[in-house]
Amino acid sequence: MPEVIIGVDLGGTRIRAAQLDHHLNILKREEMLTLADHGLEPTITRIKDLIRTVLPEDKTRVRGIGISAPGPLNPMTGVIVAPPNLPGWHNVPLERILHEQFDIPVFLGNDANVAALAEAARGAASGYRHVIYITISTGIGSGVIVDGRLLLGREGLAAEFGHIALVLEDGRVSTPEKEAAGPALARRARMLISQGQSSVISELVNGDLDSVDGKIVGQAVAQGDKLALEVVQRGGRIVGLGIVTLLHMFNPEVIVIGGGVSRLWDTLYPPMIDAIKSYSMDSAYWQELLIERAGLGEDVSIIGAGALVATNGGVEDLTQVLQTLNG
Amino acid sequence: MPEVIIGVDLGGTRIRAAQLDHHLNILKREEMLTLADHGLEPTITRIKDLIRTVLPEDKTRVRGIGISAPGPLNPMTGVIVAPPNLPGWHNVPLERILHEQFDIPVFLGNDANVAALAEAARGAASGYRHVIYITISTGIGSGVIVDGRLLLGREGLAAEFGHIALVLEDGRVSTPEKEAAGPALARRARMLISQGQSSVISELVNGDLDSVDGKIVGQAVAQGDKLALEVVQRGGRIVGLGIVTLLHMFNPEVIVIGGGVSRLWDTLYPPMIDAIKSYSMDSAYWQELLIERAGLGEDVSIIGAGALVATNGGVEDLTQVLQTLNG
Repeated sequence: MPEVIIGVDLGGTRIRAAQLDHHLNILKREEMLTLADHGLEPTITRIKDLIRTVLPEDKTRVRGIGISAPGPLNPMTGVIVAPPNLPGWHNVPLERILHEQFDIPVFLGNDANVAALAEAARGAASGYRHVIYITISTGIGSGVIVDGRLLLGREGLAAEFGHIALVLEDGRVSTPEKEAAGPALARRARMLISQGQSSVISELVNGDLDSVDGKIVGQAVAQGDKLALEVVQRGGRIVGLGIVTLLHMFNPEVIVIGGGVSRLWDTLYPPMIDAIKSYSMDSAYWQELLIERAGLGEDVSIIGAGALVATNGGVEDLTQVLQTLNG
Repeated sequence: MPEVIIGVDLGGTRIRAAQLDHHLNILKREEMLTLADHGLEPTITRIKDLIRTVLPEDKTRVRGIGISAPGPLNPMTGVIVAPPNLPGWHNVPLERILHEQFDIPVFLGNDANVAALAEAARGAASGYRHVIYITISTGIGSGVIVDGRLLLGREGLAAEFGHIALVLEDGRVSTPEKEAAGPALARRARMLISQGQSSVISELVNGDLDSVDGKIVGQAVAQGDKLALEVVQRGGRIVGLGIVTLLHMFNPEVIVIGGGVSRLWDTLYPPMIDAIKSYSMDSAYWQELLIERAGLGEDVSIIGAGALVATNGGVEDLTQVLQTLNG
């Protein structure tokens, strides 16, 4: 019987697990609610239960278990530090817990890094060796593939594009996440409206500005609302300025952009590409650059968790591993 | 007879060449003036002549010739594009020219990347696997070692820290090089003086503000001049903000800083480390980070050119290569 890989996506709302083959095709898939508010132990029990449902009868066929989890986490030690959407989780040694349970190698990766592996393995960056994945959602995360290998850094803290330093027009130092993630777009829309600017957003929330979120801003964009368009365009420009930095530091072949905010692509993209073209040192940085929307949808974390196992935690060359598997 | 490596440093003023052993020790060293203003062909002839003076009699003992050259250049194709300090050089296929001459493998690298390899091999970052080298001089260049391997990117254009996007207090988009390299410090000092601020710089140049350069600013700093101190401190803060971005993207173990402006260390460092501590997402990014001054002096390019050969152009793992060589 051929080897298989177990991929697990630990999210704040749902846990998903799959059995994958060597080519990272999903053979079997199950999911459960995380019930994060029940606390740590019940969720860990659910993770174990869910893994059991996708394990083959012959455990020796399993190459490893890969886990995509929200950061901050340490992929070197396999410890989940303190994710905002998993209350009660503080320095949980998930890798050790699951290894003791199943006696199978376990690899832990943060969700954005894992998604980068997935998109490079089977998604929008398939076949490329120099890849940057950016997700713009309630936060901004990223994952970088440098010449086929996942960029981790000394303690696995690398590739935090959402937190790079950014000086704003008014001299404040901020970050892409604080300016362009969904909550930041909502905050800015609220601020402009409370300063007296008119927007369809006020009607969409019946005047309850506190309930404005990224989705509402997106709805207003869809209706052509001027204020919402400007807010998202500003976000696109800021992400574009950040991408200029990424281009000069990594000279990638492809940038893949995912996450809920990326659904506003038609509004986000023009100011983003304009900033990239305006502020790159040389057109060589963007002329042959591909900018792609994420291609894998909700399977991204499961496939990426599988790729994490296939590359021994991201340390081996993804392209080579896939060629070997497919050869 | 053991294998040797030829390392060449092609600079705007001087060409230096050395024969190195496996451990990157310099066995023999020669240098000539570049005479860049004589044009392309005479300089290429001088490079060939100089290499001959350090070649062993038995050419088969030479593992390869490494060349450190000013960018922009393409390390993949071995072509020097158009360095400002080598007038008349446009798309010169130096790798092919030297390979045809000597029938020995030739590797071309930009000087900042090569210096990063050198510092990681034998200098201030010796033994580390996650290294960023920054040189602050007439420009700002950098080289990055990611988990033992030189970061090159798709076309070898990676690691251009001097050109990352930086928004200033007044809303302008600039770069670290345009704000903190030697000429930028001089420009800012000139501007402040011409606005009426007093500084010892005016006396140092006998009122000829056009002749203010980075060195003059350094002299004024040495005399405790308030304006010069403020100019360099601002540069330190800007470099520090840029380093925040590098820390979040690369999570390095060590940052090595070289170049002429880094001689103003006591003035540059405090605002730099202050920005790093103020704007990092988490102290984990800087708490165990080493920030070191470059350790190799003028031999850096020759040793780095040797390391470029030892790692097959930077694609192999430096630590592993050195362990093999030293083992």
